[in-house]
Amino acid sequence: MSLTTAPETHTIREGAFGNATHLSCRACGAQSPLGPYYACMECFGPLEVGYSYGTVTREQIEAGPKNIWRYQPLLPVPTDVESFPNTEPGYTRLVKADNLARELGLKTLWVKDDSGNPTHSFKDRVVATALSATRELGLKVFACPSTGNLANAVAAAAARAGIRSVVFIPSNLERAKIITTAVYGGTLVAVDGNYDDVNKLASEIAGEEEGWAFVNVNVRPYYSEGSKTLAFEIAEQLGWRLPQQIVVPVASGSQLTKIDKGFTELQNLGLVDTCDYKVYGAQATGCSPVAQAFRDGHDVVKPVKPDTIAKSLAIGNPADGPYVLDVTRRTGGAVEDVTDEEVVEGIQLLARTEGIFGETAGGVTVATLKKLLATGQLDPEAETVIINSGDGLKTLDAVADRVGPKVTIPATYDAFVKAGLQ
Amino acid sequence: MSLTTAPETHTIREGAFGNATHLSCRACGAQSPLGPYYACMECFGPLEVGYSYGTVTREQIEAGPKNIWRYQPLLPVPTDVESFPNTEPGYTRLVKADNLARELGLKTLWVKDDSGNPTHSFKDRVVATALSATRELGLKVFACPSTGNLANAVAAAAARAGIRSVVFIPSNLERAKIITTAVYGGTLVAVDGNYDDVNKLASEIAGEEEGWAFVNVNVRPYYSEGSKTLAFEIAEQLGWRLPQQIVVPVASGSQLTKIDKGFTELQNLGLVDTCDYKVYGAQATGCSPVAQAFRDGHDVVKPVKPDTIAKSLAIGNPADGPYVLDVTRRTGGAVEDVTDEEVVEGIQLLARTEGIFGETAGGVTVATLKKLLATGQLDPEAETVIINSGDGLKTLDAVADRVGPKVTIPATYDAFVKAGLQ
Repeated sequence: MSLTTAPETHTIREGAFGNATHLSCRACGAQSPLGPYYACMECFGPLEVGYSYGTVTREQIEAGPKNIWRYQPLLPVPTDVESFPNTEPGYTRLVKADNLARELGLKTLWVKDDSGNPTHSFKDRVVATALSATRELGLKVFACPSTGNLANAVAAAAARAGIRSVVFIPSNLERAKIITTAVYGGTLVAVDGNYDDVNKLASEIAGEEEGWAFVNVNVRPYYSEGSKTLAFEIAEQLGWRLPQQIVVPVASGSQLTKIDKGFTELQNLGLVDTCDYKVYGAQATGCSPVAQAFRDGHDVVKPVKPDTIAKSLAIGNPADGPYVLDVTRRTGGAVEDVTDEEVVEGIQLLARTEGIFGETAGGVTVATLKKLLATGQLDPEAETVIINSGDGLKTLDAVADRVGPKVTIPATYDAFVKAGLQ
Repeated sequence: MSLTTAPETHTIREGAFGNATHLSCRACGAQSPLGPYYACMECFGPLEVGYSYGTVTREQIEAGPKNIWRYQPLLPVPTDVESFPNTEPGYTRLVKADNLARELGLKTLWVKDDSGNPTHSFKDRVVATALSATRELGLKVFACPSTGNLANAVAAAAARAGIRSVVFIPSNLERAKIITTAVYGGTLVAVDGNYDDVNKLASEIAGEEEGWAFVNVNVRPYYSEGSKTLAFEIAEQLGWRLPQQIVVPVASGSQLTKIDKGFTELQNLGLVDTCDYKVYGAQATGCSPVAQAFRDGHDVVKPVKPDTIAKSLAIGNPADGPYVLDVTRRTGGAVEDVTDEEVVEGIQLLARTEGIFGETAGGVTVATLKKLLATGQLDPEAETVIINSGDGLKTLDAVADRVGPKVTIPATYDAFVKAGLQ
């Protein structure tokens, strides 16, 4: 495994990563300098960004822009990050979901609706921090393997930033997902094979090619920090307070673990009061290796072959699986899974009660919330937040056979009356 | 024509319409009281909301919520409008479009990206003010005729507000648009006929049925005020300043005339300095009755039968057509139209340069901007804003044949190298 693909000649400028000071191995704790590294030189474990914050105040954050860069002091990005063209993701709605709460028998429920991001998924957050790292490290190609949301986010961010993008997709991908990536004009490469094949090829290229930034491979430590902004926004939008329970969809598991990291940082900095929050993970039964490991009491996750309509969560060998188990067990939460039938019902339930049309991952989260309540694993009296990480417009097939016109009538008032529509 | 469809028994509460004081006829100027009226009792002309503002300050607005309700004092809605469940639209991104400006030879260009709204079009704004009026007037059914964006916005807002919705669509509408409306669980009615037939039926029902609010028919005066928030946000996001030129897509023409109304109000209230801004209208050649009238020097608009891929702008007999001519001529702007080929190029140009995937209406606006520059009708040195009113995810067919993978390769590093992708 190659540990770096950065040009030797590039000098990293002072302050390139803001308050970040080093990378540390999540497995053995060994430290590395900030750079284009993604695996520990001691044990090959995954690396994570470490900081030395000093003082960060609410006022400082509140005076910032209405996007993720308001949290610049808590991210591995420079103070002038705003001045470089980017898609300005984040600060999406936190919706008080009283109708859904009532229907589920829950006292206080909020939906963090990340479909409001520029390309309508939470991936715009992680791609934005990855883009900043890519620029600061002097890397020249912005790339990813993906089957959907990440492809959209990478292609759009690269277009805006004026950097070359190369997105790798399985050649049998649906036409809609091809269009929504290719329209941004970067290089789209179809690969004969399934997502695992594409992913493997991406890792190989990342190891061989100097100057390539695969957002979710060799700049992953910086990429994944972007998910912390979900935690920061939820806390700020609640009035600088943590929720008591949060339900997060689990694909690689990175979003869930980074939300926990974000909550922890806010407490350590004194930006919110400490609070015994519980973190819950949501998976589709057709790709539920972490839920299975949770139930079995295992510390490691046994890979599976995904078979679910929730494609954006269909990672059979989730990189952060063990850390998800850590976080959910440590906080007193759980990991649950729901069937594809329940996923579709979850999508419809959220749309019908709150006017929010989430993607299949949103359906997974709503359905898991319902199951956690029904099985007594979640406290109906405790303030709860769920994440809608993407947009129903991208996964229309999931509900296509379930919804439609109530009736078809001729274009006359009489027909309207006769159809009982008054 | 029936002038009201409100229940006789309902009493309108004090402050139901904020600072609004009356309705006035846009044709003859006669005043009517605030109520469920949409046509002048003297001349049957269209009604518009009038106000008595008193003092409104920047500080007051800036202290408000990050959605359209920050402009409550300038809208026909009560001070407690926020407390009723709604989709919280607005405060979408104003993107500095340097890449696009460079490509077009324009000095300063901004894109107001309304695809960031809850159902991804500007219709969420007008539906939100219509919903408030519906509630305050005691109307019980939230309805519209539509072929797309409006249907989505009405169904979503009704779901969140817990009010019955009935959306009428042509029975031959594309499956995707049916799904994105029906998923919210209201009543969707397919009507045998084209959009004109559906629209006529809606007007008939609005005239006959007590308690029905057709957002774009009998509560239209309140509905259309929502478009002013585009003007307010642009001015505030520019740092309380008006742009020198603005290009706005024209369907009914209401959005353009209300943006002009918004700019005028901001100047009258002293919230911005007075400025000789120019307003430009953008149409697709396949439905360009206003552009034609502008070129011909006519004051009235001759209806056409629409034939364009820009379906959300395909209104052959635009209600605000004459007012669009007024505004564009008075301010020194123009109305232009572009071919469907140019529309598609406009969509791709915006996506490729700024990472914003607009719907066909966005393509119309970008292409019209380009044409106005090429024909010397727009000053390349003057600060310019264009509106992207909706989302490319809803009109994928427009670009489906134009974009795709650059190459298909086997899943090997050798194949990657051989394909010249390094």
